Amino acid sequence: MKTRIADLARPDLTDLEPYVVKDVPHKIKLDANENPFDMPEQIRKLIAEEVGKHSFNRYPDPAAMALRELLAAELDVSADQLAIGNGSDELINYIIAAFGGGKVIFSSPTFSIYGIFAKVWGTEVVDVPLSADFHIKPDDIISAANAGGRSVVFICYPNNPTGNCFSQQAILDIIERSNAIVVVDEAYHEFAGETFLPQLEQYENLVILRTFSKAFGLAGLRTGYMIAGRRIIREIMKVKMVYNINSLSQKIALILLEHKDEVFPYVEKILRERDRLTQRLDGLNKITPFPTDANFILFRMESDAEAVFSALLENGILIRDLNKPGLLENCLRVTVGKPEENDAFLDTLRDFYEQR
Amino acid sequence: MKTRIADLARPDLTDLEPYVVKDVPHKIKLDANENPFDMPEQIRKLIAEEVGKHSFNRYPDPAAMALRELLAAELDVSADQLAIGNGSDELINYIIAAFGGGKVIFSSPTFSIYGIFAKVWGTEVVDVPLSADFHIKPDDIISAANAGGRSVVFICYPNNPTGNCFSQQAILDIIERSNAIVVVDEAYHEFAGETFLPQLEQYENLVILRTFSKAFGLAGLRTGYMIAGRRIIREIMKVKMVYNINSLSQKIALILLEHKDEVFPYVEKILRERDRLTQRLDGLNKITPFPTDANFILFRMESDAEAVFSALLENGILIRDLNKPGLLENCLRVTVGKPEENDAFLDTLRDFYEQR
Repeated sequence: MKTRIADLARPDLTDLEPYVVKDVPHKIKLDANENPFDMPEQIRKLIAEEVGKHSFNRYPDPAAMALRELLAAELDVSADQLAIGNGSDELINYIIAAFGGGKVIFSSPTFSIYGIFAKVWGTEVVDVPLSADFHIKPDDIISAANAGGRSVVFICYPNNPTGNCFSQQAILDIIERSNAIVVVDEAYHEFAGETFLPQLEQYENLVILRTFSKAFGLAGLRTGYMIAGRRIIREIMKVKMVYNINSLSQKIALILLEHKDEVFPYVEKILRERDRLTQRLDGLNKITPFPTDANFILFRMESDAEAVFSALLENGILIRDLNKPGLLENCLRVTVGKPEENDAFLDTLRDFYEQR
Repeated sequence: MKTRIADLARPDLTDLEPYVVKDVPHKIKLDANENPFDMPEQIRKLIAEEVGKHSFNRYPDPAAMALRELLAAELDVSADQLAIGNGSDELINYIIAAFGGGKVIFSSPTFSIYGIFAKVWGTEVVDVPLSADFHIKPDDIISAANAGGRSVVFICYPNNPTGNCFSQQAILDIIERSNAIVVVDEAYHEFAGETFLPQLEQYENLVILRTFSKAFGLAGLRTGYMIAGRRIIREIMKVKMVYNINSLSQKIALILLEHKDEVFPYVEKILRERDRLTQRLDGLNKITPFPTDANFILFRMESDAEAVFSALLENGILIRDLNKPGLLENCLRVTVGKPEENDAFLDTLRDFYEQR
């Protein structure tokens, strides 16, 4: 072997940096839009029972049929309109694998994975940035989608990191008028209540993404799902790894779905805390929180975003620093935590300004 | 949307059929090279304890650092020479993602996933078939690899489905003389004892794949790993999904590694059964088992392969039907099961011939 590794690697990925999640010491974690309430005791017991009899040595059901059938019943769709992913990340990957090669279109600031996976699949990225008030520009997206070649449009709804749901009519325009696969990523659906599920029957180019990582509090177990027409699901199945969802995650997602009445009171708690946190942030001088439909709040400081982020971290509170020139200048994002976590966050903010 | 879904999907995948694992009713499962011995009770208890305290609501460690560090110590390599995959399938996918775009070279009959993922990544497939006695042809592989452009060579060692380890010298030739990434897939390593791990330091184009799915009996949990030089690992990290390994699988793989002395007696049992099964098959008229270094046996019938497969299935025994014109004509593959499962398999074979 005379060739260097760099020459054997794809030249178009030379400048791509590995996505690194920094391991910053902290006590309160409000950076990743996780559900702050961990698995209830009674559900842990059911999982432990499953562990006692689980066939660890057998390959998982590649079709994840039990989970798809229960989800289908919940959502009033057919099991063959569903695909399960190792997190919805994996489904984003498969959508680009199956329908990519042309353009991937999205509106920044949004979930960064759409752009990263597009690059990995060698697909052109078209960013049609949000307006200053964080709304999508349907005409520009449709023009980009219809400019020739295949297209996939990703719309995060509610949008991460801005927190808002875009206009339903604007999204419908895109679905109706663009010659594209339109993916509505409803990762935060359970906090917003809004959904494009009723539109699924009418539009065969519509894909809806959901996840167990947020409202269901199952980020560790990597289970997401997509709902779409059978033709789209068939294309996804072509590129899907056979055994992509491990057998224990399949079972645990099933158990959670069967006991969702015990899980969902946490969503109500998070929504109450979200409102309280928004009001308190709004009452602070020099801070403007943006309206949110998700379990996190984006807020803008008049200045000092960097200093505030550092002060929080010094107090063991990790949030997400999104501050950079452009639409997110001086912006930070905080995930709604438990009441005492939110109080610690608010206290630190207040102290920061009082000490100045 | 006026375009049909078929026109929005990648045209080069039109003829790709979704990989379907047929769900055939059976009582004894000897088709998927799984470990027949499920998780020992004492390890289930440790997993149940973990379930009692596991942070299900938090994203997993994207670097899987605890698992990588323990594996590194076991293998006497550095943690940054390791990457963990959602099964080694995912790592095969990432190798083609990072180093593909040129050619993927392998020698059929072998593990079918190499070719399927190459197709999904739009990478040219070059099949340099095995010789009639199931050996690789190093000169032909090297010629293909050095014919221009980037190449990845996959070598399954021992080879699935033939069961044999190819000549070490032939593989070394390929590693030394081809301008290619050479992947030695050691999924069945623990049954063979052979490995290219000692060669890793010398050859920076060498990648070794291992898995917890076979000897460790963890097929359900999808945990594989690759060992390679830091430069290769860095390219893999570029294309890896951030949270590809769920947190519970990371923990369970750790627990298994820490208790491997309790798991590995099963490997000894499987090896004893493999020898017994091979001898018994060899003693049957009209059946020739091939020598194997893995936990499965490929065998050729003089004729009637299809009838034998069906007779086994009628008796609730599922093995793998590989019979098709070419190198595997009249060939079936049986995974080494528990003693009573192997007896049931042998009895059905004997009855089949006695009834004729």
